[in-house]
Amino acid sequence: MTNIINNKAITRRSDDFAQWYTDVVRAAKLANYSSLKGFIIFEPNGYGLWERIQQELDKKFKETGHENVYMPLLIPESMLAKESELLEGFMPEVAWVTEGGTKKLQERVCIRPTSETVFSDYYSKSISSYRDLPKLLNQWCSVVRWEKETRPFLRSREFLWQEGHTAHANKEEAEAETMRMLEVYKTFVEDFLAIPVISGRKTESEKFAGADYTLTIEALMYNGVSLQAGTSHYFGQKFSKAYDITFSDKNSQTEYAYQTSWGMSTRIIGGLIMVHGDDKGLIIPPKIAPKQVIIVPIANEQNILDAVESVREMLLQSDVKVVVDLSENSPGFKFAESEVQGIPIRLEIGKRDLEKGKVTVVRRDTGEKIEFESDDTLPKSIKNILDEIQKNLFVKAKQRLGDLTFEAQTIDEVEQIIREHPGFVKAMWCGDPACEEKMRERSGIKSRCIITGEKPVSDNCVVCGKKASNLVIWGIQY
Amino acid sequence: MTNIINNKAITRRSDDFAQWYTDVVRAAKLANYSSLKGFIIFEPNGYGLWERIQQELDKKFKETGHENVYMPLLIPESMLAKESELLEGFMPEVAWVTEGGTKKLQERVCIRPTSETVFSDYYSKSISSYRDLPKLLNQWCSVVRWEKETRPFLRSREFLWQEGHTAHANKEEAEAETMRMLEVYKTFVEDFLAIPVISGRKTESEKFAGADYTLTIEALMYNGVSLQAGTSHYFGQKFSKAYDITFSDKNSQTEYAYQTSWGMSTRIIGGLIMVHGDDKGLIIPPKIAPKQVIIVPIANEQNILDAVESVREMLLQSDVKVVVDLSENSPGFKFAESEVQGIPIRLEIGKRDLEKGKVTVVRRDTGEKIEFESDDTLPKSIKNILDEIQKNLFVKAKQRLGDLTFEAQTIDEVEQIIREHPGFVKAMWCGDPACEEKMRERSGIKSRCIITGEKPVSDNCVVCGKKASNLVIWGIQY
Repeated sequence: MTNIINNKAITRRSDDFAQWYTDVVRAAKLANYSSLKGFIIFEPNGYGLWERIQQELDKKFKETGHENVYMPLLIPESMLAKESELLEGFMPEVAWVTEGGTKKLQERVCIRPTSETVFSDYYSKSISSYRDLPKLLNQWCSVVRWEKETRPFLRSREFLWQEGHTAHANKEEAEAETMRMLEVYKTFVEDFLAIPVISGRKTESEKFAGADYTLTIEALMYNGVSLQAGTSHYFGQKFSKAYDITFSDKNSQTEYAYQTSWGMSTRIIGGLIMVHGDDKGLIIPPKIAPKQVIIVPIANEQNILDAVESVREMLLQSDVKVVVDLSENSPGFKFAESEVQGIPIRLEIGKRDLEKGKVTVVRRDTGEKIEFESDDTLPKSIKNILDEIQKNLFVKAKQRLGDLTFEAQTIDEVEQIIREHPGFVKAMWCGDPACEEKMRERSGIKSRCIITGEKPVSDNCVVCGKKASNLVIWGIQY
Repeated sequence: MTNIINNKAITRRSDDFAQWYTDVVRAAKLANYSSLKGFIIFEPNGYGLWERIQQELDKKFKETGHENVYMPLLIPESMLAKESELLEGFMPEVAWVTEGGTKKLQERVCIRPTSETVFSDYYSKSISSYRDLPKLLNQWCSVVRWEKETRPFLRSREFLWQEGHTAHANKEEAEAETMRMLEVYKTFVEDFLAIPVISGRKTESEKFAGADYTLTIEALMYNGVSLQAGTSHYFGQKFSKAYDITFSDKNSQTEYAYQTSWGMSTRIIGGLIMVHGDDKGLIIPPKIAPKQVIIVPIANEQNILDAVESVREMLLQSDVKVVVDLSENSPGFKFAESEVQGIPIRLEIGKRDLEKGKVTVVRRDTGEKIEFESDDTLPKSIKNILDEIQKNLFVKAKQRLGDLTFEAQTIDEVEQIIREHPGFVKAMWCGDPACEEKMRERSGIKSRCIITGEKPVSDNCVVCGKKASNLVIWGIQY
């Protein structure tokens, strides 16, 4: 199990991208398979990434006025059944608890696949006046969906996520919330994960079951396949009518509340791997890295270890996330391990460095070696490099997104593009689900989202040729 | 639902302690009942407390070298069955998933009641050499135990907790870890929650199923009933033998690993309520309070609101957790609400305060009103009061613990003590489980733990009169 750590064991991206992905997940010690099919173990490196994502996103949720709660893991079937679209959408993939203790339950309960129902049930009890609104709640939890095919982070039977659920006194506020949280996701993913995204609205056939509409951010992986990175749903009064969430407004009129929900999951870790990783393994953007710098002493001599310790303390005091590799392994092994794990900076201190009063810094993103003075200017130098790595990763990903975004006016063009290299295809759509279906059949791509604010590619639907006003981004989906 | 906020609706402790507890949980908006029996909703005030507990405990776990992971929610029956004592202990109270998606599962899987089994399964795959040890892992998650009687925080079918699971190369290290984590809990509970505890070792009949021995910290509630606040278990090689966790040591000999586990749950929130709360509601120790200061403007005038805002900013910048109540409610309502929610300091700013250049500070613990200059000395004054409240709460609780700890030499004495006022009873025990059982039958009290380092109360077992060397703390348990 530990042998794969040697990065020679990682398949090259160009040979087999799917195998490369699995190799990186295992070699970087992000996740391991459990004995239960479709369930993964989030190992310290993988969970550490999720902790950093939680810390930063949670800060943004609180800054925008949200509070955290925790709702029951289990949902009675009758409660789930109150909103028919949601029920239909999730029924094929929920796990049912039928026995509690030694007794058969009178009514079976499912493990939450998502919590619109329990939040709505709670809101129906806790909202009575406009003074109780808005309710801006969020929870961090795991959910279970009994998927057939599973892949670590991208699709598994249990995953971790956050789900925000809000209730408002009117449509305008609820719609503004839907948009605000999409922006929170976009800013977070671009600024911290260095993943550029396209944002827009899902088509009717791709929206969340039960939503009026769904906003989404879509990212493009190294291999040109697209990944939904976060979604924000506007529900209007659909759930409030199904669950009887009413309030008396300022004029003492009874009205149904307006709701939203929004979520981001551990799937984004899969995205991070596939956007930034290379043939040596993972590359973690510094702003989200649990370990930003790893110090490797080149020999086990006391003066070197002393220098390592003083550099570590200096960096710690400057809020750099630094660790030291003091294991029994060889420096070469340690180098490979720091690379496969994607730690942004490796800082080497050897005899020669010591004599020169310097340290050697190796950038994970470019492989570049730089010498820095080993004095009190070091923290600033390191921070500058961390900033540069962060910027460089985003610029590279943005460049690729541009290179792999194509325009097409006919379905033949689409087919040719996808044959040459998968990516995003911009093309017009008339609004007919039948055209989406035909696109999927012929080219294997789906609508990712409808975007606004850009010039139409043409006047006609890429599939049927009728007048079309929707500019759609299409792509192969994970 | 919102009417109970008026603290007149809270039952007095002396009238009905159990009802007082339930009233406080609801009135302070800590938790609400869900539509599923035995499952509670952690509302923002309750979850906020848990978030603070997580932040502080997690810091201590990381300082002592632990890393977080996340293990699967579900455990196959065959995996649970490998360690027979654990299986027997938990079988009567686990929830079984028997259907996934639309299909009946080939083997039923239970929702984790605790994760010794999955950690052990993982360790059997990820440990092969002494170099892989120690493994110092922890997870924050929810667990499900199908209890019959439930009470918010104290006992519910789902609760939140952390569970640490470690593996070591030898007995000494594993036993040191068991003790270290008990000390972490003790320090945390006393320093942050201001709850004094007694620590010791559980008797054979009270230890955790499958453990060699269990260490515990025990707290005493206002009503003299005791609460187990945290436990740390030493497993020896029991799980490593059942799950085949072996490693080759420095001499290339194959050996079984030594394991521990330790946990603290949302139950501790119940303890916090019952140690510090009073007839007005909750009292939260400042060091763990999500909101340390609430500012109440006495009138809705612009110069008052300006002063409120400038005080808020000043306190925020000094890292005081401060909020402002800008709701439409009356000042009197706001005062009551801040009291029932247990916010340590209420800071009032009215017209008269403004004229004098002062603010009025009200301590939640003593009700004392103090005037402070509304200048840049204010943050320091506030911090001093927060420190004083923290100390005062601990001193009061410690005093009560002393007052309610009794000594007994005979079971008749025990009965009389418990009749007069429940509390901790110190008495000798010979080591025979039959004597524990007899004690429970006659006095309704159980052994809480065996303590060391104190003078024996007598030479003979409090029950059978035989020679006895175990000094035991007995009490009524929640």
